[in-house]
Amino acid sequence: MTMPPVGSALASHIAGVQLIDQHVHGCWLTKGDRQRFENSLNEANTEPLADFDTAFDSQLGFAVRAHCAPLLGLPKHASPEDYWGRRSELTEIELGRIFLPAAGVSDWLVDTGLDHDVADTAQLADMSGGRALEVVRLEQVAEQAANTPGDYASAFEEILHRRAATAVGTKSILAYRGGFDGDLSEPSAAEVAAAADRWRDSGGVRLRDRVLLRFGLHQAVRLGKPLQFHVGLGDRDCDLHKANPLYLLDFLRQSGDTPVVLLHCYPYEREAGYLAQAFNNVYVDGGLSVNHLGARAPGFIARLLELAPFRKIVYSSDGFGPAELHFLGATLWRNGIRQVLSSFVADDEWSEADAIRVADLIAHDNAARIYHV
Amino acid sequence: MTMPPVGSALASHIAGVQLIDQHVHGCWLTKGDRQRFENSLNEANTEPLADFDTAFDSQLGFAVRAHCAPLLGLPKHASPEDYWGRRSELTEIELGRIFLPAAGVSDWLVDTGLDHDVADTAQLADMSGGRALEVVRLEQVAEQAANTPGDYASAFEEILHRRAATAVGTKSILAYRGGFDGDLSEPSAAEVAAAADRWRDSGGVRLRDRVLLRFGLHQAVRLGKPLQFHVGLGDRDCDLHKANPLYLLDFLRQSGDTPVVLLHCYPYEREAGYLAQAFNNVYVDGGLSVNHLGARAPGFIARLLELAPFRKIVYSSDGFGPAELHFLGATLWRNGIRQVLSSFVADDEWSEADAIRVADLIAHDNAARIYHV
Amino acid sequence: MTMPPVGSALASHIAGVQLIDQHVHGCWLTKGDRQRFENSLNEANTEPLADFDTAFDSQLGFAVRAHCAPLLGLPKHASPEDYWGRRSELTEIELGRIFLPAAGVSDWLVDTGLDHDVADTAQLADMSGGRALEVVRLEQVAEQAANTPGDYASAFEEILHRRAATAVGTKSILAYRGGFDGDLSEPSAAEVAAAADRWRDSGGVRLRDRVLLRFGLHQAVRLGKPLQFHVGLGDRDCDLHKANPLYLLDFLRQSGDTPVVLLHCYPYEREAGYLAQAFNNVYVDGGLSVNHLGARAPGFIARLLELAPFRKIVYSSDGFGPAELHFLGATLWRNGIRQVLSSFVADDEWSEADAIRVADLIAHDNAARIYHV
Repeated sequence: MTMPPVGSALASHIAGVQLIDQHVHGCWLTKGDRQRFENSLNEANTEPLADFDTAFDSQLGFAVRAHCAPLLGLPKHASPEDYWGRRSELTEIELGRIFLPAAGVSDWLVDTGLDHDVADTAQLADMSGGRALEVVRLEQVAEQAANTPGDYASAFEEILHRRAATAVGTKSILAYRGGFDGDLSEPSAAEVAAAADRWRDSGGVRLRDRVLLRFGLHQAVRLGKPLQFHVGLGDRDCDLHKANPLYLLDFLRQSGDTPVVLLHCYPYEREAGYLAQAFNNVYVDGGLSVNHLGARAPGFIARLLELAPFRKIVYSSDGFGPAELHFLGATLWRNGIRQVLSSFVADDEWSEADAIRVADLIAHDNAARIYHV
Repeated sequence: MTMPPVGSALASHIAGVQLIDQHVHGCWLTKGDRQRFENSLNEANTEPLADFDTAFDSQLGFAVRAHCAPLLGLPKHASPEDYWGRRSELTEIELGRIFLPAAGVSDWLVDTGLDHDVADTAQLADMSGGRALEVVRLEQVAEQAANTPGDYASAFEEILHRRAATAVGTKSILAYRGGFDGDLSEPSAAEVAAAADRWRDSGGVRLRDRVLLRFGLHQAVRLGKPLQFHVGLGDRDCDLHKANPLYLLDFLRQSGDTPVVLLHCYPYEREAGYLAQAFNNVYVDGGLSVNHLGARAPGFIARLLELAPFRKIVYSSDGFGPAELHFLGATLWRNGIRQVLSSFVADDEWSEADAIRVADLIAHDNAARIYHV
Repeated sequence: MTMPPVGSALASHIAGVQLIDQHVHGCWLTKGDRQRFENSLNEANTEPLADFDTAFDSQLGFAVRAHCAPLLGLPKHASPEDYWGRRSELTEIELGRIFLPAAGVSDWLVDTGLDHDVADTAQLADMSGGRALEVVRLEQVAEQAANTPGDYASAFEEILHRRAATAVGTKSILAYRGGFDGDLSEPSAAEVAAAADRWRDSGGVRLRDRVLLRFGLHQAVRLGKPLQFHVGLGDRDCDLHKANPLYLLDFLRQSGDTPVVLLHCYPYEREAGYLAQAFNNVYVDGGLSVNHLGARAPGFIARLLELAPFRKIVYSSDGFGPAELHFLGATLWRNGIRQVLSSFVADDEWSEADAIRVADLIAHDNAARIYHV
């Protein structure tokens, strides 16, 4: 891959293009210790890092030091100690007011299913200077329905429609609750009622019942707003091989016109791109993966540009916790897409005008079309 | 990857080397509308493209505009409107007479299983100025046998041998008829007879019966001519994860000396290359994938050059429909292999003489050896 | 990828860094014919190569000619005939004394499970001038236990502890004995006793009994020394798709603090890197794959630097047979890691000091920590 001409019209355009971050969470609101920070740089591990290890020694850790340090007045590649020291002098709110506006994001579409001690949509909008809209997590709706008296299905539908009235889409974490393989057809009303009874009897927390998970998905399809799926890498509670989006094929064949957005995708981004070509309603996104790949993100971004039609690719950071992640997602995406598209132009495979247009499609046009923002 | 020295002996050689296109279909014979053309640029989707979409906004669409436009007297990267406008002024026969000879193909090995309104071998030879030979699709032989009175197995064998007498190989689309996973051993004569009765009773169309599919494969192995398998990406009737060639392992262990050619392969090209190393009779091919990857094709071509021994890699376009695809497959392959091999030479990992020799192996020598052309 | 500045401090450092080769076998001791040599360059095939083929026409064959020829006084890219001719003038011991010291390896950790006509640890140390320590193959311990009178489980434990007293770790070839998918929990004592009786009755060779394989793994976990797994590519007796390390997830969830090292990994290196991030005790290694990828090795080495934390990556050659492979693994690794890290530094994503430090972690620091060498 040839080096991108940073002075080109394409490079300037990408540096300034406003983004719709179509899948993100809140940033922290209150101070924490270094262990909390380091664990937030490791996606897959669910335990404290080993004594011999530090999350700074990873692609994401190096990317934080390369790209976030200058915004805190430090040199690029500042040491972990200097970075943590400087970061500790600031509150999370102050960090948010530094990193969020610097991301160049006009709209944050916020999965509010992770809401413990992180900014809500109003706070995110305030800190960033952008708009923030909600994406409703289906498993949270299920838990609310389980705790509502009366018929579960009716409660689910009522809560979903009420919350969705001001939300732009829905989100499924089926990948964490048993994975994609197996039957994903719509269950009967009787099956739903029986499964809801069993689940309520057992406490109604952390939904893993397959019948109710399937019910929720088909309710989301019926709602018609974009339905986001966690796909690929996540923490180790998820069996990664069961988060391969090809196991969604039968479900996608029944999903009609409701946009289905495959999030993260690594290491199944090629499979996800295939699905985006195969179904008019399927989209791909590389959020989370881009941050964790750091210096290796350009190759990943390039793989998203293989089979997926260019009107079916969207941007997100999947930032959660440190506000650095909301900024870094945008920065690594800008650097990566510039490198990839510039190499296509340098090889005369693409025109520069097309490259600029595709950057706009991914940065905002595609997301604006499906989320109506 | 360093830029290929386009003036090198290697580059000149690759620009001029004659190809054996070892898996291709006919090009169109009669005029169609823009929707037909655009759908032919999308492999995976089986429905009309969505209103908001256009197949021109894909790697393949961009590659058509970059590489095919000049042959129609247009500038590189001509707009979709200009391209479609100019293309519409010509008949499909005229287009064939432009694009087919420009591919630099000496021999077209034609899978005649898709024969609706496309050129047959004689027409392809005539339009291109090359030779054209037949590859017999096994599922078509099965359907002919189902419609022949008397014993199914005998009819299948008779038709296969009669058609194969003038053909160079056979082709299986098992990937579209249930996939590779599961038992692929040879069924007994009684099982075949019973399955044939059931299938004939149900109409004898679109073979999906596993017993009869297995029977056909083993007949092809016994015939001894190269047996091609559709592997990896295809339209969404195929469950992509069941078209992973590793599920063929048990079958390959029983396939003796009959050459088995794994076609397309994306995104399982690494797995396919492994099989080409593991079995003396297994070959890999990247047709179809190269066209759909467009500007990303060089990386794919490089992945085909990992575990597969160099005497086990063959070229094809898998062109079908627009004659552009027959030409584009060759053009993208020439550009990609030049880039990849030039980078090996530039890094002094390979000698230039070796690189030229490997280009010849893939372009024609390997195919000439196994198909006797 | 930009070309690495070979005169940089990073390049100099990598050229000279001493390696711990944490998974290797002995090199040959006695002369053989060209067929033996060529078959040793093909990992996957279990039969003699076809008449039309030569293992010299592969990435590994080209890499031998590029990198090993100069050590035998031949020009780079010497012809196969010249290479074989020159090689034949030397004994295997002489070849070992040329290639082993040239690898720049301080410590060889030797899987002694393949011990037919190859150097043992003392001979390897002598020829190389380095230290050599043993890694005990669990399936060999099982076979020794099967041939020991009395209780199988006690015999296994006794042999394992006796051999492990002077060894640095254990190795499992479960990938070749049924694969990773399926139950890998610890069997009960009664199950083990019954399975051992059955196996002994059937001869006690080539362990494939799942209960006894599971028993061995959990004994190795209990031992606490690093446990190496053959992962990914191997000969075709292994079902490659069942050597996907994601099938180890449940086992890893029970593996406590015992380091688990995933060897080879291709084409599942991204999955392996994910596991190294997900579990404090999981490590990745790319030995064997690097040799077979030759000119394509840099991209593979880069993929190992994606999700895996940098303190969780180790080096090996997996050399076995020709001493060339012990040297080539080191040479291709040095070239590849230099290219990859230099490109990160050239893009200003990493500092050069960090790149040097990460090279040291992979070259020796991580292995020294877990193997206590």
